[in-house]
Amino acid sequence: MPTQRATLSEIATAAGVSIPTVSKVLNGRPDVAPATRQRVQALLDRRGYTARRAVRPSDGAGLIDLVLRDLGSPWAMQIIDGVEEHAFRAGMAVVVSAVHGRHRSRPDRQWIEQLSARRCDGVLLVLSDLSDSQQEQLDELGIPVVIIDPAGQPRPGIPSVGATNWAGGVAATEHLLELGHERIAVISGPGEVPCSRARVDGYRAAMNAAGHKIPPGYVRAGDFTAPAGYRETNALIDLPDPPTAIFACSDEMALGAYEALYERGLRVPHDLSIVGFDDLDAARWSIPPLTTVRQPLTEMASMATRMLRTLIDGEELGGERIELATPLVIRDSTRAI
Amino acid sequence: MPTQRATLSEIATAAGVSIPTVSKVLNGRPDVAPATRQRVQALLDRRGYTARRAVRPSDGAGLIDLVLRDLGSPWAMQIIDGVEEHAFRAGMAVVVSAVHGRHRSRPDRQWIEQLSARRCDGVLLVLSDLSDSQQEQLDELGIPVVIIDPAGQPRPGIPSVGATNWAGGVAATEHLLELGHERIAVISGPGEVPCSRARVDGYRAAMNAAGHKIPPGYVRAGDFTAPAGYRETNALIDLPDPPTAIFACSDEMALGAYEALYERGLRVPHDLSIVGFDDLDAARWSIPPLTTVRQPLTEMASMATRMLRTLIDGEELGGERIELATPLVIRDSTRAI
Repeated sequence: MPTQRATLSEIATAAGVSIPTVSKVLNGRPDVAPATRQRVQALLDRRGYTARRAVRPSDGAGLIDLVLRDLGSPWAMQIIDGVEEHAFRAGMAVVVSAVHGRHRSRPDRQWIEQLSARRCDGVLLVLSDLSDSQQEQLDELGIPVVIIDPAGQPRPGIPSVGATNWAGGVAATEHLLELGHERIAVISGPGEVPCSRARVDGYRAAMNAAGHKIPPGYVRAGDFTAPAGYRETNALIDLPDPPTAIFACSDEMALGAYEALYERGLRVPHDLSIVGFDDLDAARWSIPPLTTVRQPLTEMASMATRMLRTLIDGEELGGERIELATPLVIRDSTRAI
Repeated sequence: MPTQRATLSEIATAAGVSIPTVSKVLNGRPDVAPATRQRVQALLDRRGYTARRAVRPSDGAGLIDLVLRDLGSPWAMQIIDGVEEHAFRAGMAVVVSAVHGRHRSRPDRQWIEQLSARRCDGVLLVLSDLSDSQQEQLDELGIPVVIIDPAGQPRPGIPSVGATNWAGGVAATEHLLELGHERIAVISGPGEVPCSRARVDGYRAAMNAAGHKIPPGYVRAGDFTAPAGYRETNALIDLPDPPTAIFACSDEMALGAYEALYERGLRVPHDLSIVGFDDLDAARWSIPPLTTVRQPLTEMASMATRMLRTLIDGEELGGERIELATPLVIRDSTRAI
């Protein structure tokens, strides 16, 4: 087996097709042209590959593996809740794991062996990625993958679920512009994560459309956590020309911003308006209640689980990328300047 | 099998021993007197029971089942985080599930079949319980159980981990008494849950020791959630003789209390002092930062997982009930009257 593992991409190259196409042929999925199927199948046969249904000892143990970047936040809790609820109704169970070690966006090396040993049926990745080799091994095992909010650009053919992050960033910024703010700053999530980049780009787009230059130092690098919001808000207040409003790309960073303002005796929204992103329970219960962009985390989790079950059942999916809407929820943390 | 399932307790009665003793003999554990073992073994043989090592097809799939009362709260997140971290280091994976359906303190009926089908190695229950019949089925399958914060009185012989809830309730109340408060109210968790009862009893003990009567209406029935804290705080403020301080038996209820005060234009701690219980991240980031009793949730989860692994390895545990200390963390939500 180990000598075969690296060769799905070789077969794809030899057949002149993509790796997902090879995977489809391997797993007996319908939507491949007959000539292509024949060519790929011949190569697969020569390398000793057998189709999914024959390879697997049984239909699996009714397990979905849910892999999260980390388990610390209430954000993760809502995802787990949504996946577990859907899986329960489908008679399946959910193995929850965090990405450990230094490369926090990818599962560790033993993980695939364990997946196989416990007869996992499918994998949901949250804000994390697979290496090419991991993806090939899952293809060989016939274990499908769906991604919620990818950490990087997902490989073609891997379905993913997210929110309309760019539109959310636009809505948050336009709300502040309508209230008369012009000096609006943003605190981003981790730099490499597409959902964060899309939110910041939405902010830039709204600022540009309104004809406002973004002052130097107004785009701050955060990481979605409260300490980052606290730290970057302090840095913003210390600028020679500080902002009158901050768009924090997560609720937790918005609450970190609250704390920084509280410590300096500044009040939300009188001295500074704050908009978050997520609409966690904490946004409703914060003081003042937080104006934020609602990310439908439970629905995203439920949708991703439904897509994964479709793949587990050997059926095709319609679209490869689904984005759920992100309405602005106006509460008490923003006001006219 | 179904006809045998109800009979571990019959064997216990016939042998004049407890069910855990029958379970120990069944699973080949060492600490049973030779004469007792012989008597129980004879009864087990007659009923066709075989020992765990012989019954199980393999050593299990490296899975721990973590069953939580519900998945909504950041409290649950910390438990999952602690269990997953410990299990990961031990090369095991964690199946996370919520207790669904009307009887929210017990897993549903299909659960044991699924446990068995996926070759689960052990079970951790959080704020939930097993029926006698479920417990017997797990005994027969040789699947050990450890409880974190039992929902009721755990059956004898079932190990459990909790916090020093009574001492925490005393510490919270004494802190308020030392600040000069006498009109101190308490908002409890769900009535049947021992950790909540212990916290409220600690409050009563401290009030009694200080020679203060508890006024009518000062002991409120909550459920650990923010909406309950909000509702009961409103009820307390509307009393003819309202309290000057509130001990909320969870941080989430304390944040619900903050919200009720905020809506009425009352300030924490100037108009009312608040103490919580848990020390979630939200307590540190609330405004003002919350004085609370720290419950070491991650350590409790880690300790329970370690105990479960000991049982999975077929070894004995020293103590059956471990309580971890609950230090008071003084922040800005309490002040002298």
